[in-house]
Amino acid sequence: MELGPPGGSGPAEPGPRLRGLRGADAAASASSLSRFGAEAGCRASAVAAVLPAGGSGERMGVPTPKQFCPILERPLISYTLQALERVSWIKDIIVAVTRENMETMKGIIQRYQHKRISLVEAGVTRHRSIFNGLKALAEDQPNCRLSKPEVVIIHDAVRPFVEEDVLLKVVTAAQEHGCSDYDLEFGTECLHLALKYSHIKAKLVEGSPDLWKVTYKRDLYAAESIIKERISQKVCVVMDTKEDEEHVGHCLEEMLKTELNHVKVTSGQDLQQIILEQCYNFVCVNVMTSDFEETQRLLNMVEESNLSILYPVVVISVHFLDYESVPLGQKMEKVMQIREFAKEAKKRNILLSGLLIYFPQVGKNIDKIVCSVDYSFFFFWWEPDFF
Amino acid sequence: MELGPPGGSGPAEPGPRLRGLRGADAAASASSLSRFGAEAGCRASAVAAVLPAGGSGERMGVPTPKQFCPILERPLISYTLQALERVSWIKDIIVAVTRENMETMKGIIQRYQHKRISLVEAGVTRHRSIFNGLKALAEDQPNCRLSKPEVVIIHDAVRPFVEEDVLLKVVTAAQEHGCSDYDLEFGTECLHLALKYSHIKAKLVEGSPDLWKVTYKRDLYAAESIIKERISQKVCVVMDTKEDEEHVGHCLEEMLKTELNHVKVTSGQDLQQIILEQCYNFVCVNVMTSDFEETQRLLNMVEESNLSILYPVVVISVHFLDYESVPLGQKMEKVMQIREFAKEAKKRNILLSGLLIYFPQVGKNIDKIVCSVDYSFFFFWWEPDFF
Repeated sequence: MELGPPGGSGPAEPGPRLRGLRGADAAASASSLSRFGAEAGCRASAVAAVLPAGGSGERMGVPTPKQFCPILERPLISYTLQALERVSWIKDIIVAVTRENMETMKGIIQRYQHKRISLVEAGVTRHRSIFNGLKALAEDQPNCRLSKPEVVIIHDAVRPFVEEDVLLKVVTAAQEHGCSDYDLEFGTECLHLALKYSHIKAKLVEGSPDLWKVTYKRDLYAAESIIKERISQKVCVVMDTKEDEEHVGHCLEEMLKTELNHVKVTSGQDLQQIILEQCYNFVCVNVMTSDFEETQRLLNMVEESNLSILYPVVVISVHFLDYESVPLGQKMEKVMQIREFAKEAKKRNILLSGLLIYFPQVGKNIDKIVCSVDYSFFFFWWEPDFF
Repeated sequence: MELGPPGGSGPAEPGPRLRGLRGADAAASASSLSRFGAEAGCRASAVAAVLPAGGSGERMGVPTPKQFCPILERPLISYTLQALERVSWIKDIIVAVTRENMETMKGIIQRYQHKRISLVEAGVTRHRSIFNGLKALAEDQPNCRLSKPEVVIIHDAVRPFVEEDVLLKVVTAAQEHGCSDYDLEFGTECLHLALKYSHIKAKLVEGSPDLWKVTYKRDLYAAESIIKERISQKVCVVMDTKEDEEHVGHCLEEMLKTELNHVKVTSGQDLQQIILEQCYNFVCVNVMTSDFEETQRLLNMVEESNLSILYPVVVISVHFLDYESVPLGQKMEKVMQIREFAKEAKKRNILLSGLLIYFPQVGKNIDKIVCSVDYSFFFFWWEPDFF
């Protein structure tokens, strides 16, 4: 395949390097891999990744190019960037986008606080886009902050579920074998291009089924469900009292454990640590107080942590109301108040819902209600979308 | 490819032929196709379909064979059968299942009221399963109710989204070309098998992207989302009064139309017809009465129609409560009552939820509340899963 002169020039201005809590996927087994990763990083003087992202996505049946299609309101390419940038030994990530989408892409990098990203202009074909990325890495430009890599990973912008082990396999194979005859015979044309123009070693390694490419609209559905499943497996129950934790908290924990992999109950002292470990789901049980103190404290901590930048954080505020002891009118005022919280929280990707448990029988203990099979009380449920 | 003697024998007892409302997919463009279909049916003396369904689904990563994996609680193969049996000119559908799954399969046919189905035992390979299906069609058995077909469609049990137009293309191609050299060269081994053993014409026709096969777990997610999208595009708002229909009904209609393709508002007189046209989503607005008369009437009609056999029917019962005029205790009794309805309805695949709109300001009109942007009232939401 003969190529004309490249469509794009050098790298555009590097992406912003904002600090923030980064959202590694729950599925990543970071501990064992990072050791290997560090070794690979040692052996390779530098590893870079090039993402061709100049496609128009005509097979999607939607006007937005597929790399910009939203999954849980975040563009697909942001998930792919997240998967690559959590691999510490990838020093630079070059994204090739069309001129029209350059500003969109810069906005995505800024909004989701992606790091180590440089943008180059996409070519008219996928190969030219890759070429432009490789060229930016190979060029000796004054003031160029890019390290010259020994290994370049070429990764589709629309394969969001790439794992560190596969990337490591790619890098190791590249270091050990270079580019074999097999690849030249059976590999894709990308390899020819890399060999012919960039003088950078390259090799194709077979991926896992997880490496699938988002091509059709149904793949967006699947991607959304996979992401939802990942972030919904961990839940933290925050109790507003240590005493009740033993009763109500234990009941809730047992119930939730039948559905979810990770259930943590706390009376709040280790909340900061739980947020740092990227738990995206909270049930905040207000037993002692009739207002939203505990919920408000949790909302503040979540907001400060930047946890909700990458994924929506779900907070369910649970309130127990004794029919006899608290006048409904008074409780209603409180409900009005949480509506305001919910409105504000939603702007920051925190989905605050409420559960009011209104039990009409005097003398019924709260822990009995939570653990009861014969539910003889009322539930009221409100969701942020209602407001 | 040389085959030994077939693993299975003749057809097992035919599937039950129960009468009931059948759920054609919303996406099927029945009108124009059925004319073509009828023509094809005329030209072909008989068309049959064989579904090999003996797979173990090891790539799914789940213990259940993929054809039996649930989507919205119904097994995948039931969707495929539904897609085939809504094509009137397919006279017989032969499903090849393993001996262990024979009872499961019979249960599925009975529960979801599938028609024109015969079961044969699957062989140890996909080819033997197809062979057994073809053999059952070709054999001259006394008391055999199967028509000898001119054309046989061989269809994977795990491709649920097959449309009538593709099936028609298959049949037309088979009638016009028989089995060409191209197919023999490039087609799958199924063709060789069909040619060699069954003396029945067969041809491979290229399918559309919709014809994709459920292979991995992510495909189940995608299938579920596609089905949900299809059945959620149609909603019917049932008002309990004709007078309010103009105000509240119109507001609701306008709001819902921004999200959904088909919105119908009725005061109930044409409800039977709407159910017959397979609307799976209802909002039942109780303005005039403070009890559940309208909702109960709707639930009864849905239950009698068998609408919820194939897909869950969603009913949202909306109730307006004036803070001043109705004592809360009294309203609470009603809430208790709908919990019982919801429990019972869920057993019949009807998901009854409730929305209590509790407005504290005297003199506020209901239509103003529905259309209001500044919501100054309370919502209470209850879901069947809570009970």
